[in-house]
Amino acid sequence: MAKYAIGLDYGTLSVRALMVDIHTGEEVATSVYEYPHGVMETRIPSGKKLPSGWALQDPQDYMDGLITTVRNVMKQSNILPEEVIGIGLDFTSSTILPVKADKTPLCFLPEFKDEPHAYVKLWKHHGGEEEALQIDQIAKERGEKWISLYGGKVSSEWMMPKILETIHHAPEVYKEADRIMEAMDWIIWELTGEESRSACGAGYKAFYHHEMGYPSKDFFKALDPMMENIVEEKLDAPIKGIGETAGYLTDSMARVLGLLPGTPVGTAIIDAHSSLVGSGISKPGTMMIIVGTSSCHMILSEAEEGIPGVAGIVKDGIMPGYFGYEAGQCCVGDHFAWFTDNCVPVSYEAEAKEKGISIHQLLTEKLSGYKAGQSGLIALDWFNGVRSPLMDFNLNGLIMGMNLLTKPEEIYLSLIEATAYGTRMIVESFEEAGVPVDSIVLSGGIPLKNKMLIQVYTDICNREIKICGSSNASAMGAAILGIAAASEQTTGYKTANEAAEKLGRINDEVYTPNPENAAVYDKLYAEYKTLHEYFGKGANDVMKRLNAIRDMQK
Amino acid sequence: MAKYAIGLDYGTLSVRALMVDIHTGEEVATSVYEYPHGVMETRIPSGKKLPSGWALQDPQDYMDGLITTVRNVMKQSNILPEEVIGIGLDFTSSTILPVKADKTPLCFLPEFKDEPHAYVKLWKHHGGEEEALQIDQIAKERGEKWISLYGGKVSSEWMMPKILETIHHAPEVYKEADRIMEAMDWIIWELTGEESRSACGAGYKAFYHHEMGYPSKDFFKALDPMMENIVEEKLDAPIKGIGETAGYLTDSMARVLGLLPGTPVGTAIIDAHSSLVGSGISKPGTMMIIVGTSSCHMILSEAEEGIPGVAGIVKDGIMPGYFGYEAGQCCVGDHFAWFTDNCVPVSYEAEAKEKGISIHQLLTEKLSGYKAGQSGLIALDWFNGVRSPLMDFNLNGLIMGMNLLTKPEEIYLSLIEATAYGTRMIVESFEEAGVPVDSIVLSGGIPLKNKMLIQVYTDICNREIKICGSSNASAMGAAILGIAAASEQTTGYKTANEAAEKLGRINDEVYTPNPENAAVYDKLYAEYKTLHEYFGKGANDVMKRLNAIRDMQK
Repeated sequence: MAKYAIGLDYGTLSVRALMVDIHTGEEVATSVYEYPHGVMETRIPSGKKLPSGWALQDPQDYMDGLITTVRNVMKQSNILPEEVIGIGLDFTSSTILPVKADKTPLCFLPEFKDEPHAYVKLWKHHGGEEEALQIDQIAKERGEKWISLYGGKVSSEWMMPKILETIHHAPEVYKEADRIMEAMDWIIWELTGEESRSACGAGYKAFYHHEMGYPSKDFFKALDPMMENIVEEKLDAPIKGIGETAGYLTDSMARVLGLLPGTPVGTAIIDAHSSLVGSGISKPGTMMIIVGTSSCHMILSEAEEGIPGVAGIVKDGIMPGYFGYEAGQCCVGDHFAWFTDNCVPVSYEAEAKEKGISIHQLLTEKLSGYKAGQSGLIALDWFNGVRSPLMDFNLNGLIMGMNLLTKPEEIYLSLIEATAYGTRMIVESFEEAGVPVDSIVLSGGIPLKNKMLIQVYTDICNREIKICGSSNASAMGAAILGIAAASEQTTGYKTANEAAEKLGRINDEVYTPNPENAAVYDKLYAEYKTLHEYFGKGANDVMKRLNAIRDMQK
Repeated sequence: MAKYAIGLDYGTLSVRALMVDIHTGEEVATSVYEYPHGVMETRIPSGKKLPSGWALQDPQDYMDGLITTVRNVMKQSNILPEEVIGIGLDFTSSTILPVKADKTPLCFLPEFKDEPHAYVKLWKHHGGEEEALQIDQIAKERGEKWISLYGGKVSSEWMMPKILETIHHAPEVYKEADRIMEAMDWIIWELTGEESRSACGAGYKAFYHHEMGYPSKDFFKALDPMMENIVEEKLDAPIKGIGETAGYLTDSMARVLGLLPGTPVGTAIIDAHSSLVGSGISKPGTMMIIVGTSSCHMILSEAEEGIPGVAGIVKDGIMPGYFGYEAGQCCVGDHFAWFTDNCVPVSYEAEAKEKGISIHQLLTEKLSGYKAGQSGLIALDWFNGVRSPLMDFNLNGLIMGMNLLTKPEEIYLSLIEATAYGTRMIVESFEEAGVPVDSIVLSGGIPLKNKMLIQVYTDICNREIKICGSSNASAMGAAILGIAAASEQTTGYKTANEAAEKLGRINDEVYTPNPENAAVYDKLYAEYKTLHEYFGKGANDVMKRLNAIRDMQK
């Protein structure tokens, strides 16, 4: 009998279900459900307006999407319920919601329909910027040990600033919530009837450490007296590592989905991290870099090493048996988009239109045959601050080397190169800390669209690069964690790692460095490092002073 | 009896005659003659094609323009020949031509009609770039003392590179020429029948020094053996200072122009320098800055002081009795044009079109109400290298402080500010060398069009700025030098300085620093200086290394 697993990939705008053959890895059926409420950035369904920087969701969309897509893949594939041996899921994070003890989201209750803080705060909800600064400051003043595992800087995209924001602006929501939890853990609870917390969500987004646990009561009390007992009151539940079984499908949920009761459900994982699993990266040595609006660098290691500016180190956070490391660059695609929105002349727009190509394609076309260093430009990719390795958001961008012949495509290339230098700096900081990086896999939307960028990364990092070619890598990772939730007897796989190794996929195509360009880029990277040191580490704090003056004058 | 002087202003595309009342300064009549041959950049009249970088003129245009415009102003004003007491002229420079001993330009001779080197090489003729490098190198190898008075770098726009280019490519032109001279001196010769050389042309453009004379025979021989005796063979003639009488109108020329024979003619001056005279700057303390594609800074001083990167120090070169200093910035309007050509998005072009304004106007409009430092940006105005004070053309541009909200108009402003910081640096280097700068006058096309730029310069230099509002300032300067050529008995003026003080004009409007902006700009200027020091003086030669890599890869 063939056996199948379902992977559910909860993204920002939609959820995808993927039905996978657990032996061949064949993607048998897939179904996507766009959230009817999308991302609520200007108002909630009651009509109430939201301040800028907000990003909410409606949890009903998640449940409707679950049911719709699972039924669809069952119908499309004609697979029998007993052939589905496991379910896994990945989710954006930190995407959190307040719920009652009976699992009901607060925003479903009539008395909270008009209360924005009762809805899901999506990962990119930035309403808690002030709270993030506050938490950061208090953690540093108190010398909290765990902060070093988060690269020394708290992000408003994480869980605690979002909760503290609720306490400050809607304390009744905080009081009424029996749980405040990651949406991924809420779905798991709905599917299995058993409450747990994914080590991935708790570890990367909620300050949980496998030995130290959550931060102390004293720390939380220092944030706000109401928060003193947050762990036992709102958070506490068994922590489950990636690859563990979270529970088994309840009768009622099995009936709704058209699956068997008792079908194993894997512990949920963050969507970015799931693509590592779906690409078959099951052990140390291979770094996956998701290149999107920002970039996220992930790698496994046997050791827990402090690395400057690493945004999270979590045991069993990506793959069982290893510490999962996450580093990042704040500004990648965002910075190319800034350029095309603000700096491309009308003649180029006209040319792109005439050729029927995008402005990115036109710029790339104009750069064909360009040699490393030919533009004479170098840039710092700091337009949105620096995550790894400096973890300093009070820095800004720089472009130098222009003369009167400098062309727009050359500036565009310098920005791409800058992000590649930034990546090389992250790679080298891992290696210096004793976490070897033997190979690199690029994933995400940008590498799929821009081969020129891949070659620039290859030449600058001066090592082979492969591409994760599937846009379903996260869903595949979720399916693999569904397989891992079932017994070895059922699946034939001892561990999630084994399943990932067998089923995960990376394109065969290998990008290899062009030796001439790599040699020139070595020189340019040395220049980048000098500028990085000079402007990033205190020799000339001009950027901070410029920012201070700007903020004063605005 | 009213008395009048005629000023002739030979510009790049046309000559203007201006009839001025010598007592009231009233501009009684003016006439402009566009050169029929304009600037010959692609071919000469014979049809022969020119390489890129060339810029020739036909001297017949100068003579035709002289006759046409002088007759016109006489006719328009109904002034009698005996009421015209002097003629002066200014000219672009170094604009040179080879002529026979009888004053005939070589290009008028049938055997040279098809020879480009026989024509006038206009100031912006860049055919001698290689020769400029060669002269520079040889002068430095030989430790020639005079080179320091030219800021330590030879420009292809000066006289000797243009002559050496002729020797290399058309030695027969060099051999057949009895004189190679500035066009200004040729016109004086035609008007007066007396040969002389203006101290202004010889001093700023031909390495002549009032005490050391021209460079030595050994130096010229080192450039090319044919050049060994260039001074006595082709150049030598009495040097006349600004304010001196060059000669008196010949009978034949007086007849053609409709003036009296014997009318005094003043020594010719370079057009930029003439605008200082025409603005009434007759003594030390006031710096005039002509802000155009590049900028030119001029000031008078009693002392001959070595100032870093000053492009020329000439006794009696601008006004009698003083050393005239000239400094400059390579890239001002050019750098704003680079920006508008390459970096302004289609949406801005559309908005400007809709409003019926230029893109410069749109950007300026968007910046109204901006406070100093509000953009968070700072730039180095080195897109075309640095003339004063570094005199280093192997540097390039820098813009820093960008984030994802940075707007095009903010970058535009940062470029304007950068040129103002560069100007302040020049002002300070004069003051440090003992040449006080008490006030500043801006002139040229850009200040007339852009009040925002004037205010930025005022705030950054933190001193009052006036504007030379007349587009006839150079012609007025020439007329003043025509007055100076006549006797005190005739004019009532003892010196050119006295006449300039009485007749020269500057707009009454005074721009005064906004104290809040000036205080912030003091801080930003300190940052500019730090970056100037770091990237310009050897602490980090990244720009030179980038240029070397670029040149290697091209």
